[in-house]
Amino acid sequence: MKKVNVYITWKQGVLDPQGKAIQESLHSLGYQEILGARVGKYIELEVEEGPDIEGRVKEMCERLLANPVIEDYEIATSEEVRL
Amino acid sequence: MKKVNVYITWKQGVLDPQGKAIQESLHSLGYQEILGARVGKYIELEVEEGPDIEGRVKEMCERLLANPVIEDYEIATSEEVRL
Repeated sequence: MKKVNVYITWKQGVLDPQGKAIQESLHSLGYQEILGARVGKYIELEVEEGPDIEGRVKEMCERLLANPVIEDYEIATSEEVRL
Repeated sequence: MKKVNVYITWKQGVLDPQGKAIQESLHSLGYQEILGARVGKYIELEVEEGPDIEGRVKEMCERLLANPVIEDYEIATSEEVRL
């Protein structure tokens, strides 16, 4: 089994009100050093071994996990886990 | 300026219906190799240089960003960005 991590973020220029809210809340808690905050999604997939896992996950991102019009995604294959 | 990434995930044992829905949707799209999916949050913070950035971000996680009762968080400081 392989663990594949997918990071989904807003494309540059897309407004991120949740990130803005986090930034303002951190300021009001006294963390003035925060210059910006952006919120994205992080999806951990457990994938059965097989050919071209990364290509398949890329396809999943395009078809379901991300909205390629307004979101970017990155795929990282992490440690192999033996069951 | 430093970029700090925070990854927030559900603690083991906490139900993740969004992850379950993703898993089922991927199955119905024909991706039978998906054995599990968990959804978390990914927060990119831009932080002004200063002492003990990681300690401060840890504090922000405890106070605002994560719910330590049901969520775990990881902090990663990424490349330094010069403005």
